[in-house]
Amino acid sequence: MRMSEGVEWALHSCINLAWLEPGEAMPAAKLAGFFSLPAAYLNKQLQALARAGILTSTSGPRGGFRLARASEDITMLDVVTAIEGAEQAFRCEEILRRIPGDHEGVDYRKTCAISQSMWRAEMAWRRELAGQTIADLKRTVEKREPATPGNVRNRFANLRT
Amino acid sequence: MRMSEGVEWALHSCINLAWLEPGEAMPAAKLAGFFSLPAAYLNKQLQALARAGILTSTSGPRGGFRLARASEDITMLDVVTAIEGAEQAFRCEEILRRIPGDHEGVDYRKTCAISQSMWRAEMAWRRELAGQTIADLKRTVEKREPATPGNVRNRFANLRT
Repeated sequence: MRMSEGVEWALHSCINLAWLEPGEAMPAAKLAGFFSLPAAYLNKQLQALARAGILTSTSGPRGGFRLARASEDITMLDVVTAIEGAEQAFRCEEILRRIPGDHEGVDYRKTCAISQSMWRAEMAWRRELAGQTIADLKRTVEKREPATPGNVRNRFANLRT
Repeated sequence: MRMSEGVEWALHSCINLAWLEPGEAMPAAKLAGFFSLPAAYLNKQLQALARAGILTSTSGPRGGFRLARASEDITMLDVVTAIEGAEQAFRCEEILRRIPGDHEGVDYRKTCAISQSMWRAEMAWRRELAGQTIADLKRTVEKREPATPGNVRNRFANLRT
């Protein structure tokens, strides 16, 4: 079971966008240039974030992507879900239904002890990700490396795309 | 991100094996017959469980698979790891390394705030699965449906493979 690398790119992109000046937007090509990532594939992730209402994009010479809301209001779970989808990693195929017997009206995805335990574990994972925002990540980085926001802005300013 | 359906099959197989009489073993074909699953593919999962030390297999006319240790000592995490591997679902590709600068001696899988938070979430998921054993699952089912162990043994006894 492996998460797509798009999740890592999307989270880093969100933090970088959180360090922009208010109102400033960043074209996909510049965000890709920042980490030397393939622009078309990063753009796909950014579009997914926009569809999920995490980013907005504007066109024109000063256009690009920016956060659609305050970084306090974007959780890591929002970002992961935007890229990976909301479906459970463990998807109960209700194999109990394959045993001869009366299965009328039973939803084993809800009643099977295995399915319930797997779901409980996944909820613990989601809770953890829902408890961390882009603002929290940003603060953690700033505390350890106070020069980072300035460095990021400089690097964006000097990037030729 | 999706877990293989082999996890569901493996967990159900372990519970069924826990309901056998002590010392009794079950051939892969019978375990597959129980849920009308494709025998070759289920056998692959059972072999993985055996490699992980969760099942043992014996050959001969009364041979087959059985639990390698008490169901109290087999956690859901043991089974999930045997099928899905021990690797993290989020695998940090260290994209911070792609920024020009000095990365000598830095392991971003350990120091990057994103990587740390993703790992924390995954640890919450693992902790939950490590806290539930096959014996726990078995007890939950027996409490709700006391007839199940007997039914399972009867169904195995009547299965022609």
